Amino acid sequence: MKRKITLKQIAKELDVSISTVSKALRNSIEISEDTREKVQAFAKLYNYRPNNIALSLKNRKTKTIGVIIPEIVHHFFSKVIKGIELLANTKGYNVIVGLSNESFDKEVLNMEMLANGSIDGFILSISKETLMKQDYHHFNETINQGMPIVMFDRVINDLNCDKVIVDDYEGSTKAVNFLIDKGCKSIGLITTMDYVSVGRLRTQGYISAIENQGAELNAELILKIDDSNTSEEQIDILESQIEQLFENNKNMDGVFAVNELYALIAMKVARKRGLKIPEDIQFIGFTDGVLSKHATPSLTTVSQHAQAMGEKAASLLINRLENEEDEEHFEKVIIETDLIERNSTK
Amino acid sequence: MKRKITLKQIAKELDVSISTVSKALRNSIEISEDTREKVQAFAKLYNYRPNNIALSLKNRKTKTIGVIIPEIVHHFFSKVIKGIELLANTKGYNVIVGLSNESFDKEVLNMEMLANGSIDGFILSISKETLMKQDYHHFNETINQGMPIVMFDRVINDLNCDKVIVDDYEGSTKAVNFLIDKGCKSIGLITTMDYVSVGRLRTQGYISAIENQGAELNAELILKIDDSNTSEEQIDILESQIEQLFENNKNMDGVFAVNELYALIAMKVARKRGLKIPEDIQFIGFTDGVLSKHATPSLTTVSQHAQAMGEKAASLLINRLENEEDEEHFEKVIIETDLIERNSTK
Repeated sequence: MKRKITLKQIAKELDVSISTVSKALRNSIEISEDTREKVQAFAKLYNYRPNNIALSLKNRKTKTIGVIIPEIVHHFFSKVIKGIELLANTKGYNVIVGLSNESFDKEVLNMEMLANGSIDGFILSISKETLMKQDYHHFNETINQGMPIVMFDRVINDLNCDKVIVDDYEGSTKAVNFLIDKGCKSIGLITTMDYVSVGRLRTQGYISAIENQGAELNAELILKIDDSNTSEEQIDILESQIEQLFENNKNMDGVFAVNELYALIAMKVARKRGLKIPEDIQFIGFTDGVLSKHATPSLTTVSQHAQAMGEKAASLLINRLENEEDEEHFEKVIIETDLIERNSTK
Repeated sequence: MKRKITLKQIAKELDVSISTVSKALRNSIEISEDTREKVQAFAKLYNYRPNNIALSLKNRKTKTIGVIIPEIVHHFFSKVIKGIELLANTKGYNVIVGLSNESFDKEVLNMEMLANGSIDGFILSISKETLMKQDYHHFNETINQGMPIVMFDRVINDLNCDKVIVDDYEGSTKAVNFLIDKGCKSIGLITTMDYVSVGRLRTQGYISAIENQGAELNAELILKIDDSNTSEEQIDILESQIEQLFENNKNMDGVFAVNELYALIAMKVARKRGLKIPEDIQFIGFTDGVLSKHATPSLTTVSQHAQAMGEKAASLLINRLENEEDEEHFEKVIIETDLIERNSTK
């Protein structure tokens, strides 16, 4: 697909202001007929299709960042927002937050609402439904109209925007290697469905760590959870699925879970079955949230440095808003993970 | 203080639209000189002082609710937002969230930003700094300009707005009576400083429950935490303060904590001292978050029904936005608490 031209590029090419281009495209009588014709012809030539959002925005600085997250009752996302807030405040920016609730429509709606004059740019993490649909038109349109986006954690590789991700693959490899070093012979994986990119990458990290150690990969040891719904009943289903994992793998002596809730529930199941942690079975989670820290035993976990992620995302966005940036080149920043050793491993 | 007149009341009194009043006050030539003089004289007579926010807003429906919370890395507030979202969505409203980070200035700034055309009304919980300063001008101004506010959890009684609160006093009494019924003779309280209204009310509930049982009130058993800062170091300080509480009260056999984090840290301290839960000492927390549910042992707690609170707040606000409401009468809805029994009590 040929890359769509942005308002900014038309303005630069014709040596007029962005606001002139925007007004010319809407046929405003504030702009001379000559300029209107020139802009419209140019836009047509380069296949520029505007929609309502973000038009005529660029000359009005709101000094506000719009953040869209999939879920709010979630330690990781709230920590990222804290990081965004901290950095934005030092730079004189405000932050407002919209929620997609993992829904495609709500994501589109929230972006339209915020892009409509309230904010200068977006920091967002993509909803699960959007990832399943693979419909990214709302991101593309926003970007093409000259409003920058920074994506974090759940990102799309070929979009023209800056991205901040955790090295999920490497973090997961690190966790599994640690369990192997601590003597685990049969390591279970509790992960999400593959359409969630972070779950898929963590699964791949697990597989490669197992294979690199020359161990045999056993599909029975991998449990993939459909967590598109996180209601209370879902937690009971989760518990029975994990019980089944233990039942199918009676000699399992290590568990790597891609989030802390899965790890805690797995520890609960292990205790119920009379297993001692970490003597009989060891556990590692992902995400360093409050649950990991205050669990009994406290959970060894891969920290994603959520707050640092938020700070980095805000810094990338503000740089792009305040400086004449190269519109063709975008950064992908990888935040390194750390293994935090606690009492759920030997 | 004489109550300030609102735009809405001026409009009603003079039988013109709110937008006419707003424009007349700004001396707009769209309004006849006669009307302008009348409105301005009336406004002067009743001491109407406008500021920039919210003026000329009332005729533009954004169908968006602005929510301002003190903290985002907090299960209670995120659950309330979830409730607001759920109800707002069924009514066709969007929700955007701003954070005060417990700061007065950020609260004022966020309200100005959102009131400036982005939203129809506010749902908010007041920052600790605002409660300490007792400066409520930003709430009064917003209300006087005809933009409704619904306050939840941390509220100010004499503001002209709807309020949704938890019955903190009753919830706390319930918890302490439960511990007494389960045989506790020496019950410790871990609470916040008194300027936080919910902490103060929970402390009062504890005191009255102890006194009603004819037991002697022992000041040594009450620990008031200054939690204006919730950083990592703060948690270590918290732990040493709780250790001191145990050290000062060696026969303490019950603990009521006004939030789940305090309760969990207290259980950790008890375990370190070789005490068995619930045999030697029993624990009850406040707020039914993920920590309570997944703690070991799981924590008996007073549930605030945060999601129901959010739903009620959204419903009050939307009613006020969509119906001609009585501007002199406001509702104060009290959400009942429930005691959820788990394994930290007998």
